[in-house]
Amino acid sequence: MPEIAYVNGEFLPLDRATVHVEDRGFQFADAVYEVLRVYAGQIFAINAHLERLFRSLEAIDLQHGFTTGQLRNLVEEAARRSRFAEAVVYLQITRGRTARHRAVPPGLTPTIVITVRELEPAPATLAETGVALETVADLRWARCDIKSVALLPNVLAFELARRHGADDALFVGADGALAESTAGNIFLITNGVLRTPPKTPRLLAGVTRDAVIAAARDDGLDCREEPVHRTDLATAQEIFLTSTTSQVVPVTTIDRAPVADGKTGPITARVYQAFRRFLPQP
Amino acid sequence: MPEIAYVNGEFLPLDRATVHVEDRGFQFADAVYEVLRVYAGQIFAINAHLERLFRSLEAIDLQHGFTTGQLRNLVEEAARRSRFAEAVVYLQITRGRTARHRAVPPGLTPTIVITVRELEPAPATLAETGVALETVADLRWARCDIKSVALLPNVLAFELARRHGADDALFVGADGALAESTAGNIFLITNGVLRTPPKTPRLLAGVTRDAVIAAARDDGLDCREEPVHRTDLATAQEIFLTSTTSQVVPVTTIDRAPVADGKTGPITARVYQAFRRFLPQP
Repeated sequence: MPEIAYVNGEFLPLDRATVHVEDRGFQFADAVYEVLRVYAGQIFAINAHLERLFRSLEAIDLQHGFTTGQLRNLVEEAARRSRFAEAVVYLQITRGRTARHRAVPPGLTPTIVITVRELEPAPATLAETGVALETVADLRWARCDIKSVALLPNVLAFELARRHGADDALFVGADGALAESTAGNIFLITNGVLRTPPKTPRLLAGVTRDAVIAAARDDGLDCREEPVHRTDLATAQEIFLTSTTSQVVPVTTIDRAPVADGKTGPITARVYQAFRRFLPQP
Repeated sequence: MPEIAYVNGEFLPLDRATVHVEDRGFQFADAVYEVLRVYAGQIFAINAHLERLFRSLEAIDLQHGFTTGQLRNLVEEAARRSRFAEAVVYLQITRGRTARHRAVPPGLTPTIVITVRELEPAPATLAETGVALETVADLRWARCDIKSVALLPNVLAFELARRHGADDALFVGADGALAESTAGNIFLITNGVLRTPPKTPRLLAGVTRDAVIAAARDDGLDCREEPVHRTDLATAQEIFLTSTTSQVVPVTTIDRAPVADGKTGPITARVYQAFRRFLPQP
């Protein structure tokens, strides 16, 4: 089955989905987005994703006329038309098309793009061996709480980490505070307690992050949203990342040093099982 | 005459110029660009623009197979086909199209987009009355020397300044150092001396900035590239901005206060005349 897309009112094969070169999403990164995951044909946490999208739209003052319900219908229709049981839905809203100038003219029509791709399963070894992170200086802008497509710094950090043999980069502020990886939130387990950095402009408040916190607490674990420092990495029992596409991923190496004994740990596995109970069931 | 565009090997009317929704320029701001100005049918400072473009490509490690000469030919052909005497040429290179993931797969073919638009002349009053700036906290990423399309922070700062009644925003670092406006470099004139912030990662080294420095020195003016602080704004005799499209623009108001007597000044006019002698002549 071919992948499908939606662009400004029309469903079409992904291969034919285009936007104009003067779309502000292309020329100014003047756009926000969401990535949603389909489990057993059902979209996970669609309301949380759409609420965050509307917060992003508000944060960049993107004027639009649509409602949450209208967007939900579009996303659900895209997922339904694709017929993939396991898939990733990508939704991007730009400020629209206009002759190139940073000034926003009145009356622009936002561009809505949705793509659906069948999910490529993560390697089975991922949960067994875990991933390696490299800490990098956080050079990004000061509003990482807005889910904008201005992601070049994330691309560059990811590629830098990969060139050094790691699987992903972990952004660390000049003050040593951990922020997030290039596409996920970070959790440390210290003395049996889960810790993850609080919601500030330095990181994106992940939908999976929030679901994992709820699932862990539901399972009786102590989970705290509090500043975490890079010096805490050395004393963590376990570390994991959360994201929509990768769910819960154990981190077994940081800056070439093993996390604890370098093996994936039991609390991460317990959190993952607790999180799975929150997911749509087949 | 319709505006024209070039996309990946083909010249076509601007209205039909599109890129795929999974172009990395659209989804990740994984792209760099240049804006060039055509005077009397000739492109100004094309070599300086292309040298900077190649520095940007190098800085984001965008693998490509083209030479400066090939890009120069494309840009010149686009300008020639448009036949506009006064025009703006926009050139954007993205890392290409691929299934969405921040990882850069090997072997991507970069996307090359060129658009040419006839220049809308600036209001005649601009050089007479000057413009009003509002200082804003510089929330951008730490590599503003790379001319990337991750321009959302610039769009937001510009719109913020406009909502407050100013014409543009001036980025100021947490340390009080002036950086640049949302699309131009800043010069202050203090005790008859021109001062502009030096080339650092906090700002883009403008082609017009460099030409203005050369023209001013050629005209016998003392021009220094040195850190300029926000407290220097209050004591400046004159202030102006430089950019490819606007050339030299007097700044007569900063944060609602007049610059000196609030009128455009003689040294700015002299610099502008000196700069004009560097331009292609009809």
